[in-house]
Amino acid sequence: MKINVIENVLKYNKGQADKNRKLFKGSNILVLNLLSSPGAGKTSLIIETIKRLEGKKNIGVIEGDISSTYDAEKIGKLTSNVVQINTGGTCHLNATMVAQAVSKLKISNLDLIMIENVGNLICPVGFDLGEDYKIVISSVNEGDDKPVKYPPVFIKSNLILLNKMDLIKISDFNQSFFNKKVSELNPDSEVIKISCKTGVGLEKWINWILSRSKDHNG
Amino acid sequence: MKINVIENVLKYNKGQADKNRKLFKGSNILVLNLLSSPGAGKTSLIIETIKRLEGKKNIGVIEGDISSTYDAEKIGKLTSNVVQINTGGTCHLNATMVAQAVSKLKISNLDLIMIENVGNLICPVGFDLGEDYKIVISSVNEGDDKPVKYPPVFIKSNLILLNKMDLIKISDFNQSFFNKKVSELNPDSEVIKISCKTGVGLEKWINWILSRSKDHNG
Repeated sequence: MKINVIENVLKYNKGQADKNRKLFKGSNILVLNLLSSPGAGKTSLIIETIKRLEGKKNIGVIEGDISSTYDAEKIGKLTSNVVQINTGGTCHLNATMVAQAVSKLKISNLDLIMIENVGNLICPVGFDLGEDYKIVISSVNEGDDKPVKYPPVFIKSNLILLNKMDLIKISDFNQSFFNKKVSELNPDSEVIKISCKTGVGLEKWINWILSRSKDHNG
Repeated sequence: MKINVIENVLKYNKGQADKNRKLFKGSNILVLNLLSSPGAGKTSLIIETIKRLEGKKNIGVIEGDISSTYDAEKIGKLTSNVVQINTGGTCHLNATMVAQAVSKLKISNLDLIMIENVGNLICPVGFDLGEDYKIVISSVNEGDDKPVKYPPVFIKSNLILLNKMDLIKISDFNQSFFNKKVSELNPDSEVIKISCKTGVGLEKWINWILSRSKDHNG
């Protein structure tokens, strides 16, 4: 019975995700679903991205947390177009939560929505939100074995951002091991090395976004 | 219906956890359930604990992961009394998984079982395994806001180990903010600052274990 319930939940979620996708597509909005462990740097990445795209792209942000408005307050210093979802304990966002949040965003003329999922490397992976791309942020200090221990998120993500590269010299992180394991799981994926602290790699990340942005006149 | 199913799952789990607890108590084994985000240092902590208790305490280890035997292989270099649980994607250990793992451990004369839960700061909290203590390992590089963003694990844990203190000087981690938020959530909890890399605080951690160990002749 548990399995049936889970199947029903996922089927219902897929239907709502398809509705979200249709809305995003019709509005020419690029939507990114950001996944990571707690503290890997999702919020910092969003902040640095907003700063670098200021005047170029209109951005909306959806912040997912089990409780608190801590991250939305941080983002709120840069843009008023941010909505906090509190899941009330649930370990992932789902498409219905995102639909409700989107209804509170000002979406006219929006180019990009960044969704910060709940900090959890496992559960959010299975829930389609209607996004264009899933992006996993893995940080150097979590260790190079994350692809080995948490394969699904690396298999399902379109891009891997390896964050906190400023710590690489004082860590025992083996970059070739990490890259090898990622490419075994997901040969089509790309790894961009970044540091939200020093700015390393962020230009490449911004170009990744820009090359995927949708043309409002297209 | 979903809620009923979850309630049934938790009720069933509690029954099995009580059986585990009875076995552990009858065998005078101290059992620790180690919880953390991916990469916060659970495996390193277990390794350092085994090294420091060698010749003093007989230790068994249960390694929980969604897949791979990576961590059990690391621990296996120090002790043969280690069992890997692969949850097959499930985001937490439950009491039945632990019962099965314990049946594969050599438990006669065992003083201590360390259970490394799946790397997830949310889902494992709700599942009683029959342990004596829940311990959360939070690492400096995850940031000082973890108690604000993930309250349940800090509320339910008996001890907070703040790991990777070797990185504190190059981070913007605010120790008084972290301690304040932890004590607001859980006034009875204790925070021990450690570094598995430098050894800082590990003597205090070992003493914490020793003072809670059960007397086999008691």
